[in-house]
Amino acid sequence: MKVSLGPLPLAIPLPAFLVASYDTDGKPNAMTAAWGGVLCAEPPCLGVAVRQSRWTHAGILKHGAFTVNIPKAGQAKEADFLGMYSGKNRDKLAQASLTPVKSELVDAPYIEECPVQVECKLEKTVELGSHTLFVGQVMDVKANAHVLTGGEIDVSKVDPLIYGPNNLYYQLGPFVAKAFSVGKALK
Amino acid sequence: MKVSLGPLPLAIPLPAFLVASYDTDGKPNAMTAAWGGVLCAEPPCLGVAVRQSRWTHAGILKHGAFTVNIPKAGQAKEADFLGMYSGKNRDKLAQASLTPVKSELVDAPYIEECPVQVECKLEKTVELGSHTLFVGQVMDVKANAHVLTGGEIDVSKVDPLIYGPNNLYYQLGPFVAKAFSVGKALK
Repeated sequence: MKVSLGPLPLAIPLPAFLVASYDTDGKPNAMTAAWGGVLCAEPPCLGVAVRQSRWTHAGILKHGAFTVNIPKAGQAKEADFLGMYSGKNRDKLAQASLTPVKSELVDAPYIEECPVQVECKLEKTVELGSHTLFVGQVMDVKANAHVLTGGEIDVSKVDPLIYGPNNLYYQLGPFVAKAFSVGKALK
Repeated sequence: MKVSLGPLPLAIPLPAFLVASYDTDGKPNAMTAAWGGVLCAEPPCLGVAVRQSRWTHAGILKHGAFTVNIPKAGQAKEADFLGMYSGKNRDKLAQASLTPVKSELVDAPYIEECPVQVECKLEKTVELGSHTLFVGQVMDVKANAHVLTGGEIDVSKVDPLIYGPNNLYYQLGPFVAKAFSVGKALK
């Protein structure tokens, strides 16, 4: 039986992106965003949705750049902290013992301790209501050497943090099947 | 050590949305999209990125609606099949033994066998290059009664299919921490 839950902003799974930027004063800052994802192949683009009132919002607009940092499951505390408080009056990265590194490609810092980083140049802003969608063109993806297998990102080694969205963080589970493969059986 | 992988369209985790619509002939159709997510709270909006050449692209434009259906891990074969082949010359839903149900709220079908559905009215199209971002306003979320706990979606009961993005499907893993809670320790 299907139960109607009303018009909720819901999808499953959601990511726990740590979106880092310089703020309007040039200070490294980051917030957690569960709303966003990959949006285009050519050019490669990521989108993140940020509420207009967020401190990060003005920083991304001023510097025209952001990075998306993928936290590992062991960084739930840091991700949750970055999502709960504003960077306006505190150095959230320092409080969370996270290290901002100056990107050489875009005017935004990335977070050293996260296993994967996506460096984005702001290409487009789309006003959707409470949130602005920032579309960034990917200039580079960086990853820690230990999460690679054969030169490519091994998602199970990343052990990414996943957001519910029932206000719970989860870990990635077991491998299920190969994509572009298991479905051939139904052709 | 950080390794540069170049400008890839990459984020972790990615969803495996089954995006359903009526095609230009009015026939129910669906494709799998790993690119998209929640984009706004007020109004509640989801976005899905669809390549212009996809059969689904014209259908969404013609009918101004789509549904996002969340597959469970046990539906990897069906999700992979819907992502690999075009609905132009085949009834993919029938081949995958999936049942399209006419939405009473939007001009798109949803997939009965998926545990969660999000019914969206097309609000905005954003051209990003190879892909069009379809932004849909959520008109309703429906879920199977057995994935609810206390009237809300219990993500662990959904047991959602997750996309790598290393061309592998995964299951959701164990609970890690409560959101808006575990991070308070760093305040």
